[in-house]
Amino acid sequence: MSHFIDSSELNRKEIAPGVTIRTMWGDKTMLSLVENSPHSVVPKHSHEIHEQSGIVLEGSFEMTIGGETRKMKPGDAYVIPPGVEHSLQGTDGWGLALDVFSPPREEYK
Amino acid sequence: MSHFIDSSELNRKEIAPGVTIRTMWGDKTMLSLVENSPHSVVPKHSHEIHEQSGIVLEGSFEMTIGGETRKMKPGDAYVIPPGVEHSLQGTDGWGLALDVFSPPREEYK
Repeated sequence: MSHFIDSSELNRKEIAPGVTIRTMWGDKTMLSLVENSPHSVVPKHSHEIHEQSGIVLEGSFEMTIGGETRKMKPGDAYVIPPGVEHSLQGTDGWGLALDVFSPPREEYK
Repeated sequence: MSHFIDSSELNRKEIAPGVTIRTMWGDKTMLSLVENSPHSVVPKHSHEIHEQSGIVLEGSFEMTIGGETRKMKPGDAYVIPPGVEHSLQGTDGWGLALDVFSPPREEYK
């Protein structure tokens, strides 16, 4: 990839019903703009190698990390160590977050 | 750190005149909310180990990466491999970006 990326031109991938991602990456990190529609769900899962962190950019949703559930709003951030179960639950509106993975997730390229 | 972080409660560090950061981190990545005032400058530099990527969240600024300069607006993203020189030049307004470092930068904790 070029050093400069226009995220509005990236292709979207649907990773769960109503949940799309747009990804950019280097060798060590992947940025993923995650958009979730109202009441969409990313089911509980974990990844053994990948650290995931991120921040809410627009709208709202609920996140559960390691058994703790929070209502998330813009500016709320999270750090999910490898192996810790997490999920996303949509609310009445849309949500947009930036997820960061290290190392990059090959299946999201 | 907890899995959940309210970025509005984080302390700011000034890394250049008129440029502040608020950081969060795991073992592999650091997120840094970078706010730059009008006409502030982060001088040209590079880091040998750290990959830096990020996305503009609000406002605008100019970035130079590897000798190429672009005017940046919300949604514009960047990936800076280790060793590649880069700098930031403020415009007439404020700017807010999310920088991502891997590994975390110890001096920004």
